[in-house]
Amino acid sequence: VLDLDAFERNLARMQAAADAAGVALRPHAKAHKCPAIALAQIERGAVGICCQKVSEAVPFVAAGVRDIHVSNEIVAPAKAALLARLALRVRASVCVDDLAQIEVLAAATAAAGSRLDVLVEIDVGQNRCGVATPDAVRRLVDGLSACAGLRFAGLQAYQGSLQHLRGHGERREAAARAADRAVAAVDALAHSGVACPVVTGGGSGSVEFDLGSGVYTEVQPGSYVFMDGDYGRNEYTDALRFEHALFVATTVISTGGGQHEGCIVDAGLKSLAVDSGLPDVWNGEHDYVAVSDEHGTVHPRTPSAARLGLGARLLLVPGHCDPTVNLHDELIGLRGTTVEAIWPIAARGLSR
Amino acid sequence: VLDLDAFERNLARMQAAADAAGVALRPHAKAHKCPAIALAQIERGAVGICCQKVSEAVPFVAAGVRDIHVSNEIVAPAKAALLARLALRVRASVCVDDLAQIEVLAAATAAAGSRLDVLVEIDVGQNRCGVATPDAVRRLVDGLSACAGLRFAGLQAYQGSLQHLRGHGERREAAARAADRAVAAVDALAHSGVACPVVTGGGSGSVEFDLGSGVYTEVQPGSYVFMDGDYGRNEYTDALRFEHALFVATTVISTGGGQHEGCIVDAGLKSLAVDSGLPDVWNGEHDYVAVSDEHGTVHPRTPSAARLGLGARLLLVPGHCDPTVNLHDELIGLRGTTVEAIWPIAARGLSR
Repeated sequence: VLDLDAFERNLARMQAAADAAGVALRPHAKAHKCPAIALAQIERGAVGICCQKVSEAVPFVAAGVRDIHVSNEIVAPAKAALLARLALRVRASVCVDDLAQIEVLAAATAAAGSRLDVLVEIDVGQNRCGVATPDAVRRLVDGLSACAGLRFAGLQAYQGSLQHLRGHGERREAAARAADRAVAAVDALAHSGVACPVVTGGGSGSVEFDLGSGVYTEVQPGSYVFMDGDYGRNEYTDALRFEHALFVATTVISTGGGQHEGCIVDAGLKSLAVDSGLPDVWNGEHDYVAVSDEHGTVHPRTPSAARLGLGARLLLVPGHCDPTVNLHDELIGLRGTTVEAIWPIAARGLSR
Repeated sequence: VLDLDAFERNLARMQAAADAAGVALRPHAKAHKCPAIALAQIERGAVGICCQKVSEAVPFVAAGVRDIHVSNEIVAPAKAALLARLALRVRASVCVDDLAQIEVLAAATAAAGSRLDVLVEIDVGQNRCGVATPDAVRRLVDGLSACAGLRFAGLQAYQGSLQHLRGHGERREAAARAADRAVAAVDALAHSGVACPVVTGGGSGSVEFDLGSGVYTEVQPGSYVFMDGDYGRNEYTDALRFEHALFVATTVISTGGGQHEGCIVDAGLKSLAVDSGLPDVWNGEHDYVAVSDEHGTVHPRTPSAARLGLGARLLLVPGHCDPTVNLHDELIGLRGTTVEAIWPIAARGLSR
């Protein structure tokens, strides 16, 4: 369930912050997998979207999104071929951190007769994808210069693990360390006479700092459209505080014949991702204390909490929005209590 | 990816054990959500299937399954109405643990002109759904006797939490305690002159004990068709040991430009449920040590482990099969290295 008012305020707040900083907003569509949301973001000023897999991009292209960055590395020739075909219809870009990926992309664009922008991913502290040294960046830039269908477009510098540091100060410091590494990479390229038109990265937990860093030309937040329990536990200043807009509706189906302190609801692991913690009950009076595949156990937080009888409905705030949305086929958009939109989550399951 | 040889051996082994015990096998379809698998189970002797939600039953009815037990409580009139309509086409049953659920089911069967078998769920130690006392069972049986479209068919006695006790002995003892509670409920009913044709329950971790308990007339195991990392960590005797048949195939997409000890693969939270632990790498030489939404970090277990270059393929054993299958749209059935079947996971996402 999507609270459309909160959702629209989140979109407006992020776009205004990006506009004020003079930084491009390229929201990450892996959070919502929903073409209607991507189009709403672009309508408000986003330059395009990010996808995390090539297959994920397909429904967005079909829905009319014209500018897609695959913020990830591709190795399989079939996936590179699909991206090269999509690049006949939209502006497309992708990341590399190895010469072998460049070879695969070059062959695919040559076969399709298309062009791809390529960003060299640098590791700015996550220790996941991305190269670590200026020499390694330079080798990839040189490799790209030999490929007719590929153009070096800049750097991707994403630090995922800092997004969830709770304290505002520790998050700011970690974001500054990531930005310093991006600055060093840009400076090293400039020293070699290579311009770096784009530096892209950042997420909903760091975007406040990324926008003011002076090095990012583009930010990639995704979760801000929904928020979730995990991001809700971060400490924010008022500048960029987003609202919970995404909920899973659930129903009390059992009280164990009245034997329980609490009750059993019908949303479990197949309705809610729990990798970042159990969901919060939105009414603030109850706690979701245990999960199984298709059940949850809900307890009153205090003796004065409303007693939940059979059939009672609760809204749950998922611990982690991205994999929760990926469990569902549509978002039910509510304006107050009126269903105003039913949006297909068209890229659900497209994780290849 | 489904290893069809291992899968078929798992089906045969479970059916043979049920046949030897003279107990009906009603596999739980929430594990696989795949009509082709349900039909394969029934072809080998299963009496029907269990579903956990009414919506989940729909694609199985469409595929020709003729006997479905919804092993859960229903409160919403719309869901009861759907089940009552399905009961015009197939033998259908459902659980209750409250008189209010009986009222909803009675109204639905009256409106549809159909009949439902109803099982009273008793709590045998999980403290989730199910009533706790013989008096409570008796009140529900009496409530059912007043409803023309509903027939008391027996008891459901499922203890989910004992399935994952690691030691064979502790699991046997917990299963015995659950069976004792089922026996007590059956005896109390008999003392009141009420026959209890069916006692259904049990899972892949307890089925060995349930089959020999003398009280269960029917068992509901689900995960045995696939097995998973969590069930794999249980201690089994040779009698009912099942094989890993379900895998998620993944590809190495990055080595961080060679900077890492290990490598980055492209299967993360959106391809694998991690509620019961990270996946195991099937080759036995590597460990999947960290997960993010669309990435996993894989390290060599020993210095002699094969070095994984870009493009290397790995098979992963999911920690928990049910919610992992629910992330995917099809099972790719392999006979050795040949794709022999592509089976739609038709009930994926049907969790309402």
